[in-house]
Amino acid sequence: MDFAFDARTEELREKLLTFMDEHVHPAERTADEQRAALASPWDTPAVVEELKAEARQQGLWNLFFVDQHSLPGEEHGAGLTNLQYAPLAEITGRSPQLAPTALNCAAPDTGNMEVLAQFGDEAQKKRWLEPLLAGEIRSAFAMTEPEVASSDATNIETRIERDGDEYVINGRKWYISGAMNPLCQIFIVMGKTDPEGSDIRRQQSMVLVPRDTPGLVVKRAMQVYGYEDHYHGGHAEVVFDDVRVPVGNLIGEEGGGFGIAQARLGPGRIHHCMRLIGMAERAIELMCRRAVSRTAFGKPLAQQGVVQEWIADARVAVEQLRLLVLKTAWLMDTVGNKGAHTEIQSIKIATPRTVVDILDKAVQLHGAGGVSQDFPLAELWAAARTLRLADGPDEVHQRSLARRELRQYR
Amino acid sequence: MDFAFDARTEELREKLLTFMDEHVHPAERTADEQRAALASPWDTPAVVEELKAEARQQGLWNLFFVDQHSLPGEEHGAGLTNLQYAPLAEITGRSPQLAPTALNCAAPDTGNMEVLAQFGDEAQKKRWLEPLLAGEIRSAFAMTEPEVASSDATNIETRIERDGDEYVINGRKWYISGAMNPLCQIFIVMGKTDPEGSDIRRQQSMVLVPRDTPGLVVKRAMQVYGYEDHYHGGHAEVVFDDVRVPVGNLIGEEGGGFGIAQARLGPGRIHHCMRLIGMAERAIELMCRRAVSRTAFGKPLAQQGVVQEWIADARVAVEQLRLLVLKTAWLMDTVGNKGAHTEIQSIKIATPRTVVDILDKAVQLHGAGGVSQDFPLAELWAAARTLRLADGPDEVHQRSLARRELRQYR
Amino acid sequence: MDFAFDARTEELREKLLTFMDEHVHPAERTADEQRAALASPWDTPAVVEELKAEARQQGLWNLFFVDQHSLPGEEHGAGLTNLQYAPLAEITGRSPQLAPTALNCAAPDTGNMEVLAQFGDEAQKKRWLEPLLAGEIRSAFAMTEPEVASSDATNIETRIERDGDEYVINGRKWYISGAMNPLCQIFIVMGKTDPEGSDIRRQQSMVLVPRDTPGLVVKRAMQVYGYEDHYHGGHAEVVFDDVRVPVGNLIGEEGGGFGIAQARLGPGRIHHCMRLIGMAERAIELMCRRAVSRTAFGKPLAQQGVVQEWIADARVAVEQLRLLVLKTAWLMDTVGNKGAHTEIQSIKIATPRTVVDILDKAVQLHGAGGVSQDFPLAELWAAARTLRLADGPDEVHQRSLARRELRQYR
Amino acid sequence: MDFAFDARTEELREKLLTFMDEHVHPAERTADEQRAALASPWDTPAVVEELKAEARQQGLWNLFFVDQHSLPGEEHGAGLTNLQYAPLAEITGRSPQLAPTALNCAAPDTGNMEVLAQFGDEAQKKRWLEPLLAGEIRSAFAMTEPEVASSDATNIETRIERDGDEYVINGRKWYISGAMNPLCQIFIVMGKTDPEGSDIRRQQSMVLVPRDTPGLVVKRAMQVYGYEDHYHGGHAEVVFDDVRVPVGNLIGEEGGGFGIAQARLGPGRIHHCMRLIGMAERAIELMCRRAVSRTAFGKPLAQQGVVQEWIADARVAVEQLRLLVLKTAWLMDTVGNKGAHTEIQSIKIATPRTVVDILDKAVQLHGAGGVSQDFPLAELWAAARTLRLADGPDEVHQRSLARRELRQYR
Repeated sequence: MDFAFDARTEELREKLLTFMDEHVHPAERTADEQRAALASPWDTPAVVEELKAEARQQGLWNLFFVDQHSLPGEEHGAGLTNLQYAPLAEITGRSPQLAPTALNCAAPDTGNMEVLAQFGDEAQKKRWLEPLLAGEIRSAFAMTEPEVASSDATNIETRIERDGDEYVINGRKWYISGAMNPLCQIFIVMGKTDPEGSDIRRQQSMVLVPRDTPGLVVKRAMQVYGYEDHYHGGHAEVVFDDVRVPVGNLIGEEGGGFGIAQARLGPGRIHHCMRLIGMAERAIELMCRRAVSRTAFGKPLAQQGVVQEWIADARVAVEQLRLLVLKTAWLMDTVGNKGAHTEIQSIKIATPRTVVDILDKAVQLHGAGGVSQDFPLAELWAAARTLRLADGPDEVHQRSLARRELRQYR
Repeated sequence: MDFAFDARTEELREKLLTFMDEHVHPAERTADEQRAALASPWDTPAVVEELKAEARQQGLWNLFFVDQHSLPGEEHGAGLTNLQYAPLAEITGRSPQLAPTALNCAAPDTGNMEVLAQFGDEAQKKRWLEPLLAGEIRSAFAMTEPEVASSDATNIETRIERDGDEYVINGRKWYISGAMNPLCQIFIVMGKTDPEGSDIRRQQSMVLVPRDTPGLVVKRAMQVYGYEDHYHGGHAEVVFDDVRVPVGNLIGEEGGGFGIAQARLGPGRIHHCMRLIGMAERAIELMCRRAVSRTAFGKPLAQQGVVQEWIADARVAVEQLRLLVLKTAWLMDTVGNKGAHTEIQSIKIATPRTVVDILDKAVQLHGAGGVSQDFPLAELWAAARTLRLADGPDEVHQRSLARRELRQYR
Repeated sequence: MDFAFDARTEELREKLLTFMDEHVHPAERTADEQRAALASPWDTPAVVEELKAEARQQGLWNLFFVDQHSLPGEEHGAGLTNLQYAPLAEITGRSPQLAPTALNCAAPDTGNMEVLAQFGDEAQKKRWLEPLLAGEIRSAFAMTEPEVASSDATNIETRIERDGDEYVINGRKWYISGAMNPLCQIFIVMGKTDPEGSDIRRQQSMVLVPRDTPGLVVKRAMQVYGYEDHYHGGHAEVVFDDVRVPVGNLIGEEGGGFGIAQARLGPGRIHHCMRLIGMAERAIELMCRRAVSRTAFGKPLAQQGVVQEWIADARVAVEQLRLLVLKTAWLMDTVGNKGAHTEIQSIKIATPRTVVDILDKAVQLHGAGGVSQDFPLAELWAAARTLRLADGPDEVHQRSLARRELRQYR
Repeated sequence: MDFAFDARTEELREKLLTFMDEHVHPAERTADEQRAALASPWDTPAVVEELKAEARQQGLWNLFFVDQHSLPGEEHGAGLTNLQYAPLAEITGRSPQLAPTALNCAAPDTGNMEVLAQFGDEAQKKRWLEPLLAGEIRSAFAMTEPEVASSDATNIETRIERDGDEYVINGRKWYISGAMNPLCQIFIVMGKTDPEGSDIRRQQSMVLVPRDTPGLVVKRAMQVYGYEDHYHGGHAEVVFDDVRVPVGNLIGEEGGGFGIAQARLGPGRIHHCMRLIGMAERAIELMCRRAVSRTAFGKPLAQQGVVQEWIADARVAVEQLRLLVLKTAWLMDTVGNKGAHTEIQSIKIATPRTVVDILDKAVQLHGAGGVSQDFPLAELWAAARTLRLADGPDEVHQRSLARRELRQYR
């Protein structure tokens, strides 16, 4: 057992921290100003492309792309392990609107690229994975539905029906992150090909649907506590109305949708958790800066016992979270995503809610400023809070984890 | 001791509930649609004026205006006690964007009208109180400042300097609710006339500043978790740059600002708490409706133990809160706002945070819908959360209440 | 609506407060010393009988015995309403080991007396109710069983079988409060007379079993977090091994046990809640006294922000709880125990857990003293904590209350 | 970074787990029975000595004694690192009344042995350390005082005054763990030798006081929520009344007491935390066993959502805690106790309160059994709860940790 980062990680951390200081943080204001001048809020500010170019040149590109996928590793990405990538992803979480995109490590693209790498055929990889790895296009993952509790995949109502050489897709999805961005060119759509199938985990399939396919309508931007998340390409409601794609657009096999979704969730969740920890670190930093600079009732906030309690508890909580995320990454590297199932679920339960609490305390410490657009706290809070729902609400994961714990006593 | 509402209250409750069902709730969608078509999002949808007319005709106008102000009672308002008004205000909280305005009982106008009624001279009343009571204009209360912890009034940096027959005002305020609405014609501004005065509670004064006074700049709309609160006239940042008003615009006397602020806060806080309880009731209703209509993992959410726990705890919490608010109203009626000081502080501490928790559970139960614009929950949450900061953060009130409790043991 | 106590209540409160100050509190140490010298810790210290005599003489006897039982009211007790009794019971909670017994208002006797008054026949009343009302004997209520979740009455395993003119009882009960006290002369025993009956709420019956009946074995004292609760007569494990009683010992009718249990729980629960609030008040008082008298890191605990937060939150919570308990008492008086069902459940859920939290904070503030026998806090905590389990765990009541709330939306 | 235990640890874990299964757990009931038959509850049951002999023979003796003390390592103990010892200490926490003593790894002896090893002179080591390492005697650490907040060492009131070749000790201590056990032969006493000294961290000294020294009176057993902790030798109140010891009994130098106390606390705290995690694991196991074996309202507790939530949250919390404790052990090994200061404080804050919560849930799940002597849960809870106070209350550590966090922003 050893808690020190390896040399590769330390080297990349240093490089990335410098990149954040020299390029990302200074670009935050620029990006906001450029966006305000754009024709559409969904277009991409120029500075984002500059950041991408810089990151690629510095070897900070596609860091998420890990070895065990038996993929051409460093050819595409940095050839890191999950354990090496984790502390880097955390750092990007400190500027979550720019840094992950700058490194081509943003959700949902990372998960989608992994799906294509793992389950796509050569044609699909060529057509969609390569431009995604190159950062030329963006992608969406269309799973959540407005009418049902879609965290239970048996509830999925979207239909994918075979008709000759085509699949015909009908359904309604929402909170399809990234889809408001016109660069989002490809949708991975989850639906049922065999809705009456006896094995409820084999009813679902996934197909690739290009954005310009007739019948696919990006209907509106869903909000997240008043935010539209322009930097993330928003969260769209998307209607599929007799959308037709060639059968070659099926990913993997018919009935394989549930399995692909499961495989996709592990890395997706851990990436979210890593970035959330970075967000928590930013909150602690902002809390401390505020506490030492404001005075109320005759002494600095930093000397108020309640404020000290918040800061101490935040520090203690973050240290624990980080270690669990790192251990989970290590397990994914050593025993695979399946072997790390319990831990992946644990960090999915623990991280968002803990970070939500820390951000809430930071908001409180900032008074009216905390809820405003002048500090990143309220928006970070909304993002973290939403992750208690994304990929299934906390309660679904608690139930599942408990059942696994209980199983050994039956 | 008797926990039944009196006949007047029961009659008004029934009338108001009917008004809500027949007029307010049906207008919610209409108002949204009308607003979307307005030239400015800060303008008022036509249906709001219709609601006001209807409420006035039904005798549901200015209900907040209570007897003890020694004001011409029913002439202006309904002549109710705080205890009679409380359950009515709660009902308006179920549709907080429309109902309070429809009844001319919306913040910050109610508090401002009370200030004018209690401390204004005849000219001030004629010029500002009458059109406010008539619902012809709106008003703002400019206290909070971005640069200091303004919950501690000694920190206030805005200056009000006498210069001959005028006061010259310089300062920067933010989160001035209602000020984005062009109908908001008058600002009550808190500043220091005697910043070096030895009695730190006599340094402050309040002056009336008409919106069109040169030097007053409504600079931008502050956000609340991404929301701009168009229905409430937003929350503006306002700059006062050598703003000059006649000395007659002083409210009360020089050095009286702190006292007026204190007097204003009691009713203001209890009104907020009443409406918050209505918001909590709406959240419980939405939770229940959702729970009986959604199924996950083979059974309705209503049968899941965790959901039942949320609903039970919400019900138990709301019952307790309501009683404390009602008792506080009764105390304000019987021993005055000063005698009810501890209880006013108690409800200020307890209500927002409890309602925030209930709304958060309701959001969680609604999944992605909960954070979206398709349900009112996320926006209600943001409003309730902000009330843990408005009029001073929880921690300031906890400190003050504890000191009073401890005093008897010294 | 009126939040003032009536004259009768105010008069009795004053009388009782004086009684507490002059007699009960001074007797606390005496009682401990006398008990230490007793042959058995389950015997009763002499000072307890003196307190009883004094209370009876002062008209502070059987205060719990409320009007609506259509009983000879003041003949037996004080003829109070629940609403009048509530604030008196709260006061006794400040010294829960002596005061309720001194006033003949201690659990489980109060509930048992009410059962006898409401469901007993004349012979049963003469034989058992009269000496109980006179404070000559004590009683026990034998419901909880060690082997099953007996909060679900269908799980009850004790059997009451008719054999000629006798009932034969077999079963094992535990946490039978009061039964270690040799003065406890009579057990009300819940068991199944018709274990296969189709109506699961008609399987149970209750019978009276005198302590000296052959086959009834008081086996051992159960602990509560290390405490044996000598003042309350402990919590016994009791075995019923072919215990035979005449059929005339049946209370009410065969199959009526569940109904009697339900009827008994309402008043029993509200009495517990009232006393718990008194315990919370004592905790707040002790917290304040400690806070003003101890210094750490250069300032009194009373000036530490975290301590202030604890005290403020305790005050705010207790005010809310008390009002809900009082309203519940008022409902019991005005619409009956059934009409107050939701509120009784609400206070059962809210009161123990809130008071547990307050006591825990008080323990923390007292350092090592808090967990010791030198302050009453740890023992009060254990008592309050146990009430989250007694009469059914919180979760059973949350479930039931939620189902009632949800019913209206089906 | 590597999360696998090393081979030595794995081997010892396996051996210890076998020892627990074969010897310790079976001895639990035997020990209770033997104790019940002892003349004094403070004597040691025979089976404890048998366990010690067995552990010593198996090489499971003095495992706590770590390398970095530059002590003759394996000669005395197992020569483990903190990181190697941590998972072993956790295992002993599953049976905290027997296992730590069986392995000669019980508090406060471990801390006292480390003090002697690190700061004692050769005579002191020979006289006290050797019999302690041999498990022939026990020891006590007398720091906490009843009259002051002794977590702030400047408050210490005990006086150690030089008088010729002797120190004269006067003071009153309480919660001196282990001192009720007659085998406890030596007290390390903290007091002030220079109460007026200008450096408040140099006022204190520590001296060795043999139990039979005249003037040392072990006055009474303090309780912990009703428990006396016989297995741990209780928690005594001890009076020092003109107690005289030779100057050679001083540990280290005059004025060095504060420094020794600080040095002692690191390992002491981490040992407590390790064992607490073992207690939490036992609670989870008991929860699961109960949940699968009890039925209420028609289904096993294991299928109730609320129970699942408790179990999941417990699992998630324990995983995080364990990692933080292990990392702290690793830091103590690699950068020393001082370098691990923040982490030691973090685990001191996080572990007891988290484990308290888990035990509380386990109690709740066990109903009346949970608070009883028939399950270990209530007693474990009391022990864990007390650790939120021992070595300074949570709030002291939160304050200190926050100040360190804030320092970097000043």
